[in-house]
Amino acid sequence: MIIESIASPADVKRLSVEEMEKMAVEIRTLLIEKLSRHGGHCGPNLGMVEATIAMHYVFQSPQDKIVFDVSHQSYTHKMLTGRVGAFLKAENDDDVSGYSEPSESEHDHFIIGHTSTAVSLAGGLAKGRDLRGERGNVIAVVGDGSLSGGEALEGLDWAAELGSNFIIVVNDNQMSIAENHGGLYRNLEELRRTNGTCPNNLFRAMGLDYVYVERGNDIAALIAAFQKVKDIDHPIVVHINTLKGKGFALAEKDKERWHWSAPFDKESGELLHPCTVETYDELTAVHLLELMGQDKGICAITAGTPGVWNWTPERRKAAGRQFVDVGIAEEHAVALASGIAKAGGKPVFGVCSSFIQRAYDQLSQDLCINDNPATILVMWGSLSTMTDVTHLCHFDIPLLSNIPNLVYLAPTNREEYLAMLDWSINYREHPVAIRVPVGPTKAATRPTATDFSALNRYEVVEQGRDVAILALGNFFSLGERVCHLLKEQGVHATLVNPRYISGIDGDLLCRLSEDHRLVVTLEDGALEGGFGEKIARYYGATAVRTLCYGAKKEFVDRYVPKDFLAANRLVDTMIAEDIVGLLD
Amino acid sequence: MIIESIASPADVKRLSVEEMEKMAVEIRTLLIEKLSRHGGHCGPNLGMVEATIAMHYVFQSPQDKIVFDVSHQSYTHKMLTGRVGAFLKAENDDDVSGYSEPSESEHDHFIIGHTSTAVSLAGGLAKGRDLRGERGNVIAVVGDGSLSGGEALEGLDWAAELGSNFIIVVNDNQMSIAENHGGLYRNLEELRRTNGTCPNNLFRAMGLDYVYVERGNDIAALIAAFQKVKDIDHPIVVHINTLKGKGFALAEKDKERWHWSAPFDKESGELLHPCTVETYDELTAVHLLELMGQDKGICAITAGTPGVWNWTPERRKAAGRQFVDVGIAEEHAVALASGIAKAGGKPVFGVCSSFIQRAYDQLSQDLCINDNPATILVMWGSLSTMTDVTHLCHFDIPLLSNIPNLVYLAPTNREEYLAMLDWSINYREHPVAIRVPVGPTKAATRPTATDFSALNRYEVVEQGRDVAILALGNFFSLGERVCHLLKEQGVHATLVNPRYISGIDGDLLCRLSEDHRLVVTLEDGALEGGFGEKIARYYGATAVRTLCYGAKKEFVDRYVPKDFLAANRLVDTMIAEDIVGLLD
Repeated sequence: MIIESIASPADVKRLSVEEMEKMAVEIRTLLIEKLSRHGGHCGPNLGMVEATIAMHYVFQSPQDKIVFDVSHQSYTHKMLTGRVGAFLKAENDDDVSGYSEPSESEHDHFIIGHTSTAVSLAGGLAKGRDLRGERGNVIAVVGDGSLSGGEALEGLDWAAELGSNFIIVVNDNQMSIAENHGGLYRNLEELRRTNGTCPNNLFRAMGLDYVYVERGNDIAALIAAFQKVKDIDHPIVVHINTLKGKGFALAEKDKERWHWSAPFDKESGELLHPCTVETYDELTAVHLLELMGQDKGICAITAGTPGVWNWTPERRKAAGRQFVDVGIAEEHAVALASGIAKAGGKPVFGVCSSFIQRAYDQLSQDLCINDNPATILVMWGSLSTMTDVTHLCHFDIPLLSNIPNLVYLAPTNREEYLAMLDWSINYREHPVAIRVPVGPTKAATRPTATDFSALNRYEVVEQGRDVAILALGNFFSLGERVCHLLKEQGVHATLVNPRYISGIDGDLLCRLSEDHRLVVTLEDGALEGGFGEKIARYYGATAVRTLCYGAKKEFVDRYVPKDFLAANRLVDTMIAEDIVGLLD
Repeated sequence: MIIESIASPADVKRLSVEEMEKMAVEIRTLLIEKLSRHGGHCGPNLGMVEATIAMHYVFQSPQDKIVFDVSHQSYTHKMLTGRVGAFLKAENDDDVSGYSEPSESEHDHFIIGHTSTAVSLAGGLAKGRDLRGERGNVIAVVGDGSLSGGEALEGLDWAAELGSNFIIVVNDNQMSIAENHGGLYRNLEELRRTNGTCPNNLFRAMGLDYVYVERGNDIAALIAAFQKVKDIDHPIVVHINTLKGKGFALAEKDKERWHWSAPFDKESGELLHPCTVETYDELTAVHLLELMGQDKGICAITAGTPGVWNWTPERRKAAGRQFVDVGIAEEHAVALASGIAKAGGKPVFGVCSSFIQRAYDQLSQDLCINDNPATILVMWGSLSTMTDVTHLCHFDIPLLSNIPNLVYLAPTNREEYLAMLDWSINYREHPVAIRVPVGPTKAATRPTATDFSALNRYEVVEQGRDVAILALGNFFSLGERVCHLLKEQGVHATLVNPRYISGIDGDLLCRLSEDHRLVVTLEDGALEGGFGEKIARYYGATAVRTLCYGAKKEFVDRYVPKDFLAANRLVDTMIAEDIVGLLD
């Protein structure tokens, strides 16, 4: 294969167009092979094969710097920059990450996983180049739905003032993760229809120069376009029209399904390990759709990620105007929810833990200062869900639980979650966020409250003495297991389901201090700024000792959850051992 | 005066255009009187008098809902909605806030102080209206530099999909707080020049209908425009060309100086209580400008608020390309800084504590995961600076100090601040944020370190026993006073300057536990998620007791700092009393 002979971009430059076209076919074959056995981003990578080859043919990486937005479309770039080995055999699949990664290669400049960041980051490279009097092209590759994010639009607006070389490649594959949303995508459509000539042009309106490439999967056309803008002395947008999923028929046909996939059979497209149990994501969509039928004020909101809570195209259609996809625009989603709640509607914004942090100011200012009763469903918040450093779901507790007025709840089982969700939708006093449990649903084994209006009342599940375990949300079952181990050693611990992440039950904590020497907190997230520290502070001036369990402050990447939990002593036997040691 | 007879918008509707014009003059007189004696936003309010009158003439508030972005231009709206009393006499000046405030009036729908939020919030009102099958106009008033903010651009993009009544008034006064920055403002200029007819149009490119009003301070013209769009069945932008500061010659001339002002003499424009001492803001700009002359890699960045750190127009000019104003776009500013640092430049982003929270995800993802060595100067972080609920500077410690890789420093005096700043600019290991002290500069009374590379080493300023006081940043002097009071009572406390907000000095804390029974933390910010709780957690399992001082979790509005500090027991005598009580 030609691709196996590519050790660096210099080798690309030696190829003819025909050879590059042949190599594109090889790359697609390798992509589909690896994606099917390993899982990963299908559509975005398959659509960008030719453009990536053409960029490396024309530009001089790493002196010329290419920055991929979201960077989940950088697999071809990795193959062309000395990392093809990670795409040839299953045993090397994990040699590279799924995103750009400077520690892998001098051709990668940032670790990027969140959307809409590349124009600003690459803009910084361009500005740094200018400050230092250096030369070279800086190329930002954006698209795949990321243009609707505020940071990308801020970056485009700013770029017009740079006044020096800056090339912004807009990969227009006509899709986000789901279909695109927002008016600007209509302008892209008009630009495509008019071969880039329509007078109204978002990029020109932002003050940028512009060129259109209709055949965005044609290597020769792309090379010609990039050669024209190479070494340009001002910022320019190169709008390329690509086909998401190109070369894999299933992915070309159902672009949303094939944006990302777990390992699959490449003939049938069936998942190799399909989910056969009810998950909280699935439960959420099913339940909300049912509620919507009864209450026309309920409105589910997503910011470009309906799959995070299993809003399939069919369900979205069934919900009609009660389902809103704002595109990748979390800030807008939170403020919109606040406005809907103010107008008497019942908004429910479902969002992945890793992405809710894109809207901190909106949570604080637009929602919580105004105390409007919107519901935020924080999905996947846990140390055991997403393990790429750019998508960690560790930080939502510190982020949300310290905002005044917000009630942040941590249900521990299926029935408690549904009760909290039903309550929250109709509660009118404060905004409520719910940290939706992760994994398969778990049935309640004790009666469930239905009214959570008396805030910050923890539930004592088991009354013991000497040691109390405050086991939050996902970690309630860990608390149960610790209690069981302690009982085997003759310690009858009190087990508490705190339910409220965002507030302290002073009455209960005070009562506990009467016959407990130690209070232990367990939280499935980052420790610093989180729940346990509030308990430690509460007891700080008393004789009650505290032990807080959670993850220590660090960015970890591609970890094995089991090992990570053990490294943080988040294991029942370790915790029981610590407790017994302290009680002695 | 006519304005005194306006009890509600119904009274506006009874006026002739001539009477409204007369009233506009009265309103301006009242505005200038109140602003001169009380301080407040001058330019924004003076420019919006006619448009506000015309809106209340045409629309039926509160059934029709008007939402002001930033809402610092809503004074005329307040006068026309039953609150003129707060503008007539000095003793009533504080009867209303400087922002829209639902608790004051049914004509205000949100508490708004941060920029770029109105399209999304008002969009939510429109969506809520539609969900509930209600009617009425929803009007968002944006402008004054706020269009460059990502949230506003996300909102505009989304609005195109609403498909029902939504009127977005773009108040184009050709300014932000300082001059506008970004390519989109060139498009506004082109639209003004062509009377709204140029084919390239940002708003149309975003999928929105559009109309232009050249005479944005002409009541009759505005009424005609608003009447045309009233009850429209789809979203439309009404672009009005206004004069910032209109009617106050000084403000028309120097728009930046007169965006906001402390009380002033209305003839000369001189401040009534000019600052006569060196402040940390001033020190920062002077020092950085000097450093820039020696090092061309240093680049100061502001997000539309150069005044926050005293970058006057003259200084910006002197800095040349080493000063970048990205416009109101904090997300972009942080990502840009990361990119510049990656390219070998030395970016310094100066930003008010209240506004850094607009860029949490960029701090985490773009900056800290990439571990690029940018410097962030957090200005005004304190419980005693901005007291409007929308501008509280309480939350930066919980927000920043829990992000991995970020070194967050808290200098305690002038020399220590400069040493940290100098060190940070040349440090290449991690991003560094500095919580710049507030108020007049204070000279060091002890030797100052110059190298802070050995992270998380606290400074023991006074070695005592039994009790140790960890007095952070601004509150170091409070710690000194507490120690002094304790000494009078025979307690020789240890006084520690932690210096590092974001990390624990385990060695020192362990040593302290040998001969200290109590460790007290003092921080000038919100308690929950902050510095003290980390110390409480550290000592949780030991015999050392802890007491954490800071502000309890709440949104407070227009408070008197002294009273607020006392309510949180942030007073030397109270703290000393608590300590003595606990030691006994």
